[in-house]
Amino acid sequence: MKTAVVAIGGNAILKAGEEASFANQMRNLQSTCAHLARMIRSGYDIVLTHGNGPQVGNILIQNDLARKKLPSMPLDVCVAESQGQLGYMIQQALTEALIKEGVRKVVTCVLTRVIVDPDDPAFEQPTKPVGPFYDGEEVAELKSTHNWDFAIDEKRGGYRRVVPSPRPIGIVEFSGIRRLVFGGENQAEVVIASGGGGIPVVERGGFYTGVEAVVDKDLAAAVLAVKVQEKLFVMLTDVDNAFLDYHSKNPRPLGRTTAAEMREHLERGQFGAGSMAPKVEAALYFLANGGERAIITSTEKIDQALEGRAGTLIVR
Amino acid sequence: MKTAVVAIGGNAILKAGEEASFANQMRNLQSTCAHLARMIRSGYDIVLTHGNGPQVGNILIQNDLARKKLPSMPLDVCVAESQGQLGYMIQQALTEALIKEGVRKVVTCVLTRVIVDPDDPAFEQPTKPVGPFYDGEEVAELKSTHNWDFAIDEKRGGYRRVVPSPRPIGIVEFSGIRRLVFGGENQAEVVIASGGGGIPVVERGGFYTGVEAVVDKDLAAAVLAVKVQEKLFVMLTDVDNAFLDYHSKNPRPLGRTTAAEMREHLERGQFGAGSMAPKVEAALYFLANGGERAIITSTEKIDQALEGRAGTLIVR
Repeated sequence: MKTAVVAIGGNAILKAGEEASFANQMRNLQSTCAHLARMIRSGYDIVLTHGNGPQVGNILIQNDLARKKLPSMPLDVCVAESQGQLGYMIQQALTEALIKEGVRKVVTCVLTRVIVDPDDPAFEQPTKPVGPFYDGEEVAELKSTHNWDFAIDEKRGGYRRVVPSPRPIGIVEFSGIRRLVFGGENQAEVVIASGGGGIPVVERGGFYTGVEAVVDKDLAAAVLAVKVQEKLFVMLTDVDNAFLDYHSKNPRPLGRTTAAEMREHLERGQFGAGSMAPKVEAALYFLANGGERAIITSTEKIDQALEGRAGTLIVR
Repeated sequence: MKTAVVAIGGNAILKAGEEASFANQMRNLQSTCAHLARMIRSGYDIVLTHGNGPQVGNILIQNDLARKKLPSMPLDVCVAESQGQLGYMIQQALTEALIKEGVRKVVTCVLTRVIVDPDDPAFEQPTKPVGPFYDGEEVAELKSTHNWDFAIDEKRGGYRRVVPSPRPIGIVEFSGIRRLVFGGENQAEVVIASGGGGIPVVERGGFYTGVEAVVDKDLAAAVLAVKVQEKLFVMLTDVDNAFLDYHSKNPRPLGRTTAAEMREHLERGQFGAGSMAPKVEAALYFLANGGERAIITSTEKIDQALEGRAGTLIVR
C-alpha cells in the first residue's frame, strides 16, 4: 500500500490578490484537486493537510467588524472554524475530482488539535501578524480589553495583532486519523487533517487548553506524518523545486538530495524564512523521525515528482 | 460493548438570552459534558451530535456585518464553520470532563455532510428563519443579488431570511464514523459528528453539491444512528420526558412506551412542532430502521434514564 501525507499551500486555495469568494476558492481547489485525484488514482492513500492564512484572517476580520454586536471568538476557535470551512470545501472539490478519475472514495475531514509547549520561546515573542489592520485608538482599546500584542506594518500603514508561532510537538487526534488511513482492508477514506497547522493547544494532566497562536502548517504536517507512521511526505507549493541561490541570477534547482545536505544548505541561510525554510525544516524533522522520502514540488509537477522526474526529493 | 448516538440540544451550549461568548458556551458545555462523561465512564462508547442554531446564526450575522468588505460564505459553508467551532469547544469540554472521571479517551470530531433529496418539497417552501434581521431596503437589495427568500417577523419587527429544512436521507461520512466507533479492540475515540444536523448536500453521480438549507439535528442524528448500526439513540433536551397534554393543567409524562403508541400521539398533534415532534419523529425513524431503544430526557436525568428510572423510553 502506498500512502503519503500531502500538504497544499495557501495559493492552492486562493491566489494572491484574488477576492476571497467561495466561487474563486472552489475554482482554485478544483484545479488543485485534479492533480491530487490523479495521485490517488495511481494508488496512493493520502492524508491531506492545507494552509488557512487568508481564510482565518477573514474570519478574524468578520469577528472584528461584528464586535460591537457579538462577542468575538478567540483565535483558536477561529482556526477551528477555518478547518470546518476549508475542510468542507476541499471535501467537495476532491470528491468531484475523484469521480472524474473514476475513483469512489469518501473524503473525510477530522478536526485536528496540535499540541505546543507552553514554555516554547515563541510565546515570549509574538511575531506572526493576523487579522485586520487597526488604527492607534483601536489598538489602545484592544490592548486594554484583550491584552493583545501589536506590530506596525510600515508598508500598509496600520497596526496588526501579532501572535506566537510555537513549534508543534504532537497531534491529539492522530490515532483516529491513523485508523481512518490504515484501518480497513481497502482504505475507503481520503483524510483531511491538521488544517491550517492545527488548532493550537497546550496539554496539562491529560486535557487541553486552547492558545491564541498559529502553527506552521508544514511543521504540523510533518509531526502528523511521523505520528501516523507515514513513509512519504509531499509538500506542494508554487515552485517546482527548492532552489540554491534562489535570489541570484543563477538559481539552481535541487533534485534528489539527502537530509544532511539539506541541513547544511538550511544552516547557510539558503532558504527563505517563512517560505522554503519551514518546508525544509519540516522535511528534516520527518526524515529524522522515521520518514523515508520528503518531496517539495509544485502541484502541477506532483505526478512527475512521484516518479523521480521532477521536484526536490530528500532522502535520509 | 454498549454504544449509543447521543444528541444534545442548543441549550446545552447556550441558554436563551445568554450572550454568545466563548466563556458562557464553555461553562454550559462543561456542565453538560460532566453528565456525558459519567455515561462514558459507565461503559458507553458514544457518537455525540449537537445543535448549532445560535452559533450558525452568529456566523451569518458576522458575514453580513462584514459584507461590504468581504464576500459572504454560503449557508452550507457557514454550517461547516459552526461544526468546526462547536466540535472543537465540545472536544475540549468533554476531554476535561472525562479526565475528571478518570477516563482517557480522545474526543474526535468528524466534519459531516448530510444528504438531502433535491426534490424534497421543503425546497418549494422555505420556512426556517436564519441569520440577522433586515429592513425593507436591505431585503430588496439581497433579493436582487442573492435570490433569497424572506419572511417578516411580526414580534421582533424585521425581515429574516428563510431557508428550506429538508429531510435527511443519508450521511456521507458514515463509514469513517463507524470505523472510529467500532473499529478498534477498545474504542479509543469518542466521536462528534453531524453537528447542527450536518452540512446539507445533494448527491448527483457520486459527487455532492452544497445547498443553502438547514437540517433538523435530531432527524440527522437518527439517520446517522441507523447508518452506523447503533441500537440506542438518546436525545437530550430541557425537559425530563416527552409529555401528553403538555400545555394543559395536567401534563402527563411518558415513561416506557412503544413506537406504535408514540406514532398515534404524534399523529394526534400531542407534540410541539419544532420541539418535541421532530424528536419523536427521529425516534420513530430510528426504531423503524433497526434501532432498538430511543430515549428522550434531560441532560441531568441521563444516568437514571439509562437505568430505566427516568425519561421517556421508546421501544419497537
